[in-house]
Amino acid sequence: MDNIKKIIEILNSHKDYVSGDHISEILGVSRTAVWKYIKSLEKYGYRIKTLKGKGYMLEKTPGAPLPWEIDRFLNTKTMGREIIYKKTIDSTNSFAFKLALSGKPEGTCVIAEAQNEGRGRMQRTWFSPEGKNLYLSLILRPYIEPARIYPVTFISCLAVYDTIKVASEIAPALKWPNDVLLNNKKVCGTLIEISAESDMVNFVIAGIGLNINMEEKDLTEDIRYKATSLYMETKKVYDRAFICGLMLNFFEKYYEIFKNAGGSEICRLWEEKARIKGKFIEVNQMGEILRGISVGIDATGALLLNIDGKTKRIIAGDTMF
Amino acid sequence: MDNIKKIIEILNSHKDYVSGDHISEILGVSRTAVWKYIKSLEKYGYRIKTLKGKGYMLEKTPGAPLPWEIDRFLNTKTMGREIIYKKTIDSTNSFAFKLALSGKPEGTCVIAEAQNEGRGRMQRTWFSPEGKNLYLSLILRPYIEPARIYPVTFISCLAVYDTIKVASEIAPALKWPNDVLLNNKKVCGTLIEISAESDMVNFVIAGIGLNINMEEKDLTEDIRYKATSLYMETKKVYDRAFICGLMLNFFEKYYEIFKNAGGSEICRLWEEKARIKGKFIEVNQMGEILRGISVGIDATGALLLNIDGKTKRIIAGDTMF
Repeated sequence: MDNIKKIIEILNSHKDYVSGDHISEILGVSRTAVWKYIKSLEKYGYRIKTLKGKGYMLEKTPGAPLPWEIDRFLNTKTMGREIIYKKTIDSTNSFAFKLALSGKPEGTCVIAEAQNEGRGRMQRTWFSPEGKNLYLSLILRPYIEPARIYPVTFISCLAVYDTIKVASEIAPALKWPNDVLLNNKKVCGTLIEISAESDMVNFVIAGIGLNINMEEKDLTEDIRYKATSLYMETKKVYDRAFICGLMLNFFEKYYEIFKNAGGSEICRLWEEKARIKGKFIEVNQMGEILRGISVGIDATGALLLNIDGKTKRIIAGDTMF
Repeated sequence: MDNIKKIIEILNSHKDYVSGDHISEILGVSRTAVWKYIKSLEKYGYRIKTLKGKGYMLEKTPGAPLPWEIDRFLNTKTMGREIIYKKTIDSTNSFAFKLALSGKPEGTCVIAEAQNEGRGRMQRTWFSPEGKNLYLSLILRPYIEPARIYPVTFISCLAVYDTIKVASEIAPALKWPNDVLLNNKKVCGTLIEISAESDMVNFVIAGIGLNINMEEKDLTEDIRYKATSLYMETKKVYDRAFICGLMLNFFEKYYEIFKNAGGSEICRLWEEKARIKGKFIEVNQMGEILRGISVGIDATGALLLNIDGKTKRIIAGDTMF
């Protein structure tokens, strides 16, 4: 990866052709090796012009969430410091879970271009077409008891919220517990999975599915009415590596707040941005529909709903659209 | 397994020799097949006398926790209805965790004669010599949120407590949060590991290490002062299949209480048998030593300690001997 990264840096820093000799000198590898790297870059979707006697010129980067591309935008200490990139995977969460079991450190990040078995909460599927969105899972190793894990969901949502605001300049909405909406449709879903002992969390997998360049025609009929993407809302195509880098930076910021100020502070921040206090909300709790005025969320992340004058605390449920 | 089980039943029900013909007739297999089954039983440690013209007679069962032996003592609906038996394993919990990830149902039980990497809480090792004790892990799939998982530890402890009382007629003691003691030494440790989403448990692995026939000479120097076994306390050798069957029966009983009456009822039962109310207790909480008078445990399983007039709630910690 180091040499790939260096070659892209060299090509990026020249607006003109760069000779193979020059590159091979800087990298300390043969000209044939340089040629091989160029070929592999083309496989990743880079468009590189080659001119005999002149060398190579970068015409277009693929805009894909490739580790070395994301790295250009990262200013994190741990999040995304190791990125495992896959073309296709069953589920980034499942893969990250196995990596965590084998001891991979906090901040390790799994990214895939497509998921065959992309999952949401409660074993639901997450629509995961290839090459347009972001499917990402982070390994976290917070030093907390299982009862305190709930707000980690909000870390992901807050990070995505800020990312969308900065990148697209449109304002998303937060839907309890784990979604981010644009124009009342899902642009992002998050999934927290944990491994723990009875009193101590071993690790957490924070999964994020963010719809970026997906078009309406990519959607299947059954989710067309409820799913959207940054592209669908703004008619712009986004560099997914940039979006991903931004998101990892925000994630680390909120994770630091979680570790230093606690989950209650994350809940407060989420509640502030979700602006759900005083709103009429319908929640589907295992098939039972609860309707009431939101009193906000409590310090553990549970939704508080005033139903006929009584406050009900809801942990597992879905806010309805 | 079915034929193995049937042969043992046949041999057990005859005090005299049973002819190979008779067995082959009942099983509907050839005499050579019967002979092969007999040979494999001998490998499992059964002592079987063979007399030409007379047949086979069972002299001695190995007393090992073999699935078909345990099955004779089971009266459960789910617990131990499938038992995976291994000579040696890294850790029964790790193996059961993988089985649970692959979809194995509630009640599936992993048993090993020895563990190379037997684990206790907080990544500690659990001393696991071969062929004398019980190392067992159960897959559970309760429909609860992660915050309610703590009392599952007590289900294991209560089951072992009752098992020891019935089998050995001596009274064990319960030590918060996860040990069973005899004569102030550990006879059993339990380890709960969970996989969950933020609001819902996927599965729980309930691991139990119970020292049964281990002798003083089996112990390493570093744990001699704090570990014991049923044999060491009573000078009797126990049938481990019987102990295991008994324990699974009790486990299911308490698990039903957990599901129907809730974790608080399990905590109440544990507190009743642990008789810790009013006792002076020292707890090591991540290196900090807390001393106080126990007020019992609360409905979530946390230890309540009165320290200088103030009640402190302790989740992660170790009661000191």
